[in-house]
Amino acid sequence: MGINRPSEVDADRSFHHGFIQELGVLKALKYKDNTLRVLDQRRLPNRVEWICCTDATCVAKVIREMAVRGAPAIGVAAAYGYLLAARSLAARGEGLTVDALQAGYRELAAARPTAVNLVWALDRMVACLRDAEPLPDAQRLDRLSDEAQSIEARDVEANLAMSQRGAALIERDRECGWVLTHCNTGALATAGQGTALGVIRDAWSAGRIEGVYVDETRPWLQGSRLTAWELQEESIDYRLICDGAAASVLATGRVGWVIVGADRIAANGDTANKIGTYSLAVLARHHGVKFMVVAPRSTIDRDCRDGSAIEIEQRPAVEVSEVGGQLLAPRGASVYNPAFDVTPAGLIDALVTEAGVVRHPDRDSIARLFD
Amino acid sequence: MGINRPSEVDADRSFHHGFIQELGVLKALKYKDNTLRVLDQRRLPNRVEWICCTDATCVAKVIREMAVRGAPAIGVAAAYGYLLAARSLAARGEGLTVDALQAGYRELAAARPTAVNLVWALDRMVACLRDAEPLPDAQRLDRLSDEAQSIEARDVEANLAMSQRGAALIERDRECGWVLTHCNTGALATAGQGTALGVIRDAWSAGRIEGVYVDETRPWLQGSRLTAWELQEESIDYRLICDGAAASVLATGRVGWVIVGADRIAANGDTANKIGTYSLAVLARHHGVKFMVVAPRSTIDRDCRDGSAIEIEQRPAVEVSEVGGQLLAPRGASVYNPAFDVTPAGLIDALVTEAGVVRHPDRDSIARLFD
Repeated sequence: MGINRPSEVDADRSFHHGFIQELGVLKALKYKDNTLRVLDQRRLPNRVEWICCTDATCVAKVIREMAVRGAPAIGVAAAYGYLLAARSLAARGEGLTVDALQAGYRELAAARPTAVNLVWALDRMVACLRDAEPLPDAQRLDRLSDEAQSIEARDVEANLAMSQRGAALIERDRECGWVLTHCNTGALATAGQGTALGVIRDAWSAGRIEGVYVDETRPWLQGSRLTAWELQEESIDYRLICDGAAASVLATGRVGWVIVGADRIAANGDTANKIGTYSLAVLARHHGVKFMVVAPRSTIDRDCRDGSAIEIEQRPAVEVSEVGGQLLAPRGASVYNPAFDVTPAGLIDALVTEAGVVRHPDRDSIARLFD
Repeated sequence: MGINRPSEVDADRSFHHGFIQELGVLKALKYKDNTLRVLDQRRLPNRVEWICCTDATCVAKVIREMAVRGAPAIGVAAAYGYLLAARSLAARGEGLTVDALQAGYRELAAARPTAVNLVWALDRMVACLRDAEPLPDAQRLDRLSDEAQSIEARDVEANLAMSQRGAALIERDRECGWVLTHCNTGALATAGQGTALGVIRDAWSAGRIEGVYVDETRPWLQGSRLTAWELQEESIDYRLICDGAAASVLATGRVGWVIVGADRIAANGDTANKIGTYSLAVLARHHGVKFMVVAPRSTIDRDCRDGSAIEIEQRPAVEVSEVGGQLLAPRGASVYNPAFDVTPAGLIDALVTEAGVVRHPDRDSIARLFD
């Protein structure tokens, strides 16, 4: 299976608390010495464990079992998984072709069938190999390695660009200097830095915010398990709250911005994100608090007319009725568990992408992002 | 300690699923044969266990350790605890006086120092005993027994009156025939029937509603552990949701009313209730859904001018960072955990009490409830 426990990671000089640090960016994925190291998010926050994958089957397994999550992070992991499949093939002395790698492609693509970035990243690797077919095998491997690194680097670059743009929107204000965020949109969800949490990191470094309220984000608790952990690792001041406490926090007047990520943005700006986001958008508007969505341009689905066309994934009852195998509701409880909700564009004050910021997004202003 | 396991309860003909049924009302407390039977709410929904208390020390313990919770239920339990203390004294042949019972009073009163109903009920028992001092001991015991039963009966009567009044406000409507509730306000929280959940029971029986969305109500999960259990026991159609999903449920247009209880109501109608209630009130207003508060008149604190004068209890971090001893957040996580929030009177469409219904409550209309 190619899974090794990561004693060598701890000895790595670039290791920063739980993360690997590279050029000042915290990372939960690291490819080095023909090994993809993956920070195991299922164990957080109780244990910091890295899984070392040396073949594609291992990478497919860590994606499928959600040791790595977040659409951008999954795409990067899959690209390196394809590279590892190519290396295995070359090591056996077999010809390095798209056809010969079909099994590895299928194994990786099937790991999370709904994650768009996964197939997008794999298709970029396939196109790269096809272009390199005139070259000898060793050079084909080099090209694939370059492509995977490029996919990773592009995600980090986009995140850094969004972080700067988003942080610049936040005015220093001691009266309402806190922000509020939902779910996890940080280094753990991306190739590094993060989207909404990237904005918060930059705003904190620049002294523009006093601290961060973090929704625990039921049912998966990405806020308490992952976002609180990232903020604590970097000594950013935060307060973890239950999702139901957000309204009373906003009523205190201490919060200037609610800042969230996005899973899918329709052509008119309606935004699907983790369940609970729409609730925050309504509450922010009621309290005169501004609402920011931070997402790479690839999250915008131009074929999707508006929010009503976004299908909302229904998740199993057990996510709500149990925590860690412990029953929290009557046996056979009837549960309604939508994974996402849709925030109408009209409730969004700023959409931050790597290509620019859109104030009060609508169909026209979003179309201009692609000009 | 006087704790016995309740095999005899199961043989009781009035036993209905988990509850005792008496005159058609489900009850989680039952005094009979010099024993107070208490349904242990800490074990729900996994186990239905009754604790049988035969002395005041046992009653103080079940209150302190939250085997029984909900201000009205605690008051009733304390009254019977005082009666048991009197019976112990009489059995030892000691004189039955207020002074002789002072130790029992103090033990019960200290069990939950913030619960107003507890001291109110104990003071009624003390006044009753003082009035009975010219009588022989056996008659004093009878008077105390009558008083405890009267406290219990008065709570049930108030709940039945509120249930009818509240249910009458709900118009049969197949388009938006669902209601949404928060926390637990049912038989478990009162002497029987419940407040907001009492309204829902009556509305269901009268065919006025199609079903009930139940907020799980973090951090204590009274919604999933207690309300879902009560509804399931009575075969009322419900869907358990995460608190963050309420906004998207209201956006569907299926919900006609949000119905909640109250912990303290200021003279102007501002209402403190379980954290997350204010969030629902804002979301209800945004979606054109009506918002009902159901509480006995004793919940109205006429000395409290408005919501800003209500002190909000801060609860320990561990309620948010752990579930059942399992760590859900980084060790030492910084948590903000207010137990209650305040809903401004302006967001309340109807306040239902046993003395009458107030539409759009304000200082004047609330004062008239006491005329």
